[in-house]
Amino acid sequence: MSLLSLDDLNALPAEDFGAGLADIFEHAPWVAGRAAGLRPYASVDVLHDAMMGVVRDLPEPQLVALLAGHPPLAGAAARAGTMTADSTREQGALALGQMSQDEFARWDALNASYLDKFGFPFIICVRRHTLASIQRSFKRRLQNDRATELKLAVQEISRVSRLRLAARIAGPLSNITGQLTTHVLDTAHGRPAAAVRVELLETSAIGERVIARATTNADGRTSKPLLDGSPLRIGTYELRFHIGDYYRRLGALGDEQPFLDVVPIAFGIGEAEAHYHVPLSVTPWAYSTYRGS
Amino acid sequence: MSLLSLDDLNALPAEDFGAGLADIFEHAPWVAGRAAGLRPYASVDVLHDAMMGVVRDLPEPQLVALLAGHPPLAGAAARAGTMTADSTREQGALALGQMSQDEFARWDALNASYLDKFGFPFIICVRRHTLASIQRSFKRRLQNDRATELKLAVQEISRVSRLRLAARIAGPLSNITGQLTTHVLDTAHGRPAAAVRVELLETSAIGERVIARATTNADGRTSKPLLDGSPLRIGTYELRFHIGDYYRRLGALGDEQPFLDVVPIAFGIGEAEAHYHVPLSVTPWAYSTYRGS
Amino acid sequence: MSLLSLDDLNALPAEDFGAGLADIFEHAPWVAGRAAGLRPYASVDVLHDAMMGVVRDLPEPQLVALLAGHPPLAGAAARAGTMTADSTREQGALALGQMSQDEFARWDALNASYLDKFGFPFIICVRRHTLASIQRSFKRRLQNDRATELKLAVQEISRVSRLRLAARIAGPLSNITGQLTTHVLDTAHGRPAAAVRVELLETSAIGERVIARATTNADGRTSKPLLDGSPLRIGTYELRFHIGDYYRRLGALGDEQPFLDVVPIAFGIGEAEAHYHVPLSVTPWAYSTYRGS
Amino acid sequence: MSLLSLDDLNALPAEDFGAGLADIFEHAPWVAGRAAGLRPYASVDVLHDAMMGVVRDLPEPQLVALLAGHPPLAGAAARAGTMTADSTREQGALALGQMSQDEFARWDALNASYLDKFGFPFIICVRRHTLASIQRSFKRRLQNDRATELKLAVQEISRVSRLRLAARIAGPLSNITGQLTTHVLDTAHGRPAAAVRVELLETSAIGERVIARATTNADGRTSKPLLDGSPLRIGTYELRFHIGDYYRRLGALGDEQPFLDVVPIAFGIGEAEAHYHVPLSVTPWAYSTYRGS
Repeated sequence: MSLLSLDDLNALPAEDFGAGLADIFEHAPWVAGRAAGLRPYASVDVLHDAMMGVVRDLPEPQLVALLAGHPPLAGAAARAGTMTADSTREQGALALGQMSQDEFARWDALNASYLDKFGFPFIICVRRHTLASIQRSFKRRLQNDRATELKLAVQEISRVSRLRLAARIAGPLSNITGQLTTHVLDTAHGRPAAAVRVELLETSAIGERVIARATTNADGRTSKPLLDGSPLRIGTYELRFHIGDYYRRLGALGDEQPFLDVVPIAFGIGEAEAHYHVPLSVTPWAYSTYRGS
Repeated sequence: MSLLSLDDLNALPAEDFGAGLADIFEHAPWVAGRAAGLRPYASVDVLHDAMMGVVRDLPEPQLVALLAGHPPLAGAAARAGTMTADSTREQGALALGQMSQDEFARWDALNASYLDKFGFPFIICVRRHTLASIQRSFKRRLQNDRATELKLAVQEISRVSRLRLAARIAGPLSNITGQLTTHVLDTAHGRPAAAVRVELLETSAIGERVIARATTNADGRTSKPLLDGSPLRIGTYELRFHIGDYYRRLGALGDEQPFLDVVPIAFGIGEAEAHYHVPLSVTPWAYSTYRGS
Repeated sequence: MSLLSLDDLNALPAEDFGAGLADIFEHAPWVAGRAAGLRPYASVDVLHDAMMGVVRDLPEPQLVALLAGHPPLAGAAARAGTMTADSTREQGALALGQMSQDEFARWDALNASYLDKFGFPFIICVRRHTLASIQRSFKRRLQNDRATELKLAVQEISRVSRLRLAARIAGPLSNITGQLTTHVLDTAHGRPAAAVRVELLETSAIGERVIARATTNADGRTSKPLLDGSPLRIGTYELRFHIGDYYRRLGALGDEQPFLDVVPIAFGIGEAEAHYHVPLSVTPWAYSTYRGS
Repeated sequence: MSLLSLDDLNALPAEDFGAGLADIFEHAPWVAGRAAGLRPYASVDVLHDAMMGVVRDLPEPQLVALLAGHPPLAGAAARAGTMTADSTREQGALALGQMSQDEFARWDALNASYLDKFGFPFIICVRRHTLASIQRSFKRRLQNDRATELKLAVQEISRVSRLRLAARIAGPLSNITGQLTTHVLDTAHGRPAAAVRVELLETSAIGERVIARATTNADGRTSKPLLDGSPLRIGTYELRFHIGDYYRRLGALGDEQPFLDVVPIAFGIGEAEAHYHVPLSVTPWAYSTYRGS
């Protein structure tokens, strides 16, 4: 699907505008329809605000109806492959194919508890989360009262629709991407550590998987951010720096077991749209790290 | 077996001295016999030097015969339980019971290659090593020439016999123990971090196992060293500091995903008789470590 | 004057006890006299508590009279040399001899303002302070109300008398000394930095003076604490580590201007009876420090 | 004087080219004259190489004559104000007006020793040095042999002429500027430290003077580099970070003497055309720094 420009959107007949943005809100094309009447928009941010204004102005029954249009997380529709195209793409991160029957049963139970307690499904912007962080959120949010959850559901819908808009429209939209960068400084020699292999893993109680690999350049940086271009997924990560190989190449290590070999830095990402800079200052005998930005 | 004192040993009839220390050298009670004639000894260190002098003065054929009396690592005698009591105790660390037939076959192949190349079995002071480091040593030493290996074999016998002496005699013997200590400093608050849970794991390519647990006291230290009282095992380790729990108790963390939770420090120990001090200076957003002593 | 033992003090006739401790409280030998009746004392701490109990139980007019017995700081008596022997020793730190007429005039004005506002002289335990910190305290305390200053005056008298007791009696007294120590770790080489020259300066707005010099030993420590055996003086200090010389001896620096030469660490001491450990971790290109204990 | 463009220079009549660049080499307009014949030049770097080629191809007597055209450092011409305009500007950094007669006498003696030993004056690119580093260089270079000094003199002339060219021609010239930057990170709070006052001092055995002041912005950086746009002066410096004020504003410090107030970082600059990044990571109780780039 080719991207629409803001100029196009401002100029289109109302019904075409509505059709073009029909699926920004799940099963609620009428939100785009109403937003058509408020054109022109000075920016995509303003357009998104207007669409969210339509949602926020809904009387509660209609709002709950809108929420009810969202598919349960890892629910029957997800497993059967009958969700909207957008939801299918977004829930793809949940790796449903790899879930066991037991896990599906646990999700079903969570979804049912939530629906039972609040009268609408649990909604979360999946693209801002790892599976572990969705589960943590789910359990925590089950403790909230209904007013809080109505507010949080609208907030999550705002995040989902914002990312859907960004995928449809050519034009800048603020606050939709995060970034993870690193830097390796060799403080024994007072210069950037070049050619250090770095791996980034997503970690969780049940395992870990490598999600990025890079090698530092002459500036001690990676040629591009380790994560970039979309929200970071809230969750836990580990960077692994192959420092032993680096110092071995410099001839700084003998034959015996080195003190430092692969240096792990385990950290959490809690802000999906932030810049996390996680550098390493290192000698063969010491290192330090911090969260920069 | 009650410990002998140095005074006792100096005063005993020669044959009793020999009998008391008969098994310091594997299947070579005559080493102790010859050492009896050189009494009195001013210290256990001097006694050990004298016993090693007997070994070093041997003509090569007799030395090789002495070496040949040592059981192969993880060999048939180890599996059948027919080694000397000391060797059984020492090789216990190899966790033979958990080895697969494949692994036994790999050890057999290594032992056979070594015996074939050098004419005597591979000897290493098992109590100074993890399994991974024995395997690494074995492969590296297979590349040496015979003269080098004869020298290394005597050095390892010196280490083995030194530790056996220490277990038999009440009295100080230098350079037989290493130590691992830690300290946690909260540099956000300028004071030791108390009540931080710490775990020490032995790590290897095939897995990891917790070998010590402790909690820091008001000084940010553990009440006793994490490792102490014997040589450190050359190998790779990981310390895990439960920093998230610590700062959560102080109210310094919110609900969201914290940046630091369990801080891992992966390090190698290359000197079995050294003091490794591996401290952590930490805030909720940064940390550093180094090898101290 | 030879030190009295606690046993002696417990056994002495009451008048001798009173005479022996007559000058613990400035111009108030009767405090010791009353404390004689409460013997025996289990420890010097208990004895001091009892003497302070006598002071605290005084009706306000008598307390003010006791306070009034103290000489003004850097006042006429100090300049004329007519203070008690203890006050002379204590105010010695003020280096009156080096004060200009202008400075004396400033002190006189401060003393007069204080006396005028509160009706008793400003009292501070001089041995816990640098000149700069006395001045800062003086100005701050002038802002307090009378009740607060009465309380602080008693607290300061407690500190003064505690230190005087410690100088008279052989026997431990808690919480009367502080300590400043350091350590230099060479994290480029993973070992203590030996033979590093270290200077300690007391600093202030008007200048600085070296108050201790030391050289690190093989452990990277100084053979004894840089400050020890009495309260630390609250104030500002600078440690200077001659790191350039150290790395030059190791051949780690070329001919050109090095990045690090003399590393200064400027710090304040706010707790007179605490242990300040101020270590340096250093490479030729980086360093860090922290307040430890 | 308006800047010449490279195109202009390539197109000018030879005598105008020569006139325009006559004073790039001190009292040696003929260097520019010869370089006119080698046009066109593809870049200012190539032009400078060509001019230096003229110098390097000189037979020794002519080279020495060229060197002899340079005024002695802080010599009679400098004091009398009769040097070329360029030399006057360059030696301005020596702050001759503030020199005592004794200092002038010391310079005269150094100049005379050098001239006597080598037969040409001591030449150094003053704009790359502090006074202290010129003196250090002078003393060290007096120990060299004549061949080495001839080579170094040509190298310094190359540096001087390069900077003079850069001031005459609009167009990029490589390797003529250095940069000093800083950054302050508050690792107690995991964010840049904003509004921290920073001073940069040039330091030497005889004193110090503030050469830049800045305040960090929301990113913890200064809005522009502390030093920029010309070579750094080889020498010793101190950065002072007003950390106490920063934490006081955050309410993180009590009334008592803080541990850290103004944090000094003393460092040397040895590479005039390099980027020195000297950051501070800090909490109220700890800090670290390193040379970055």
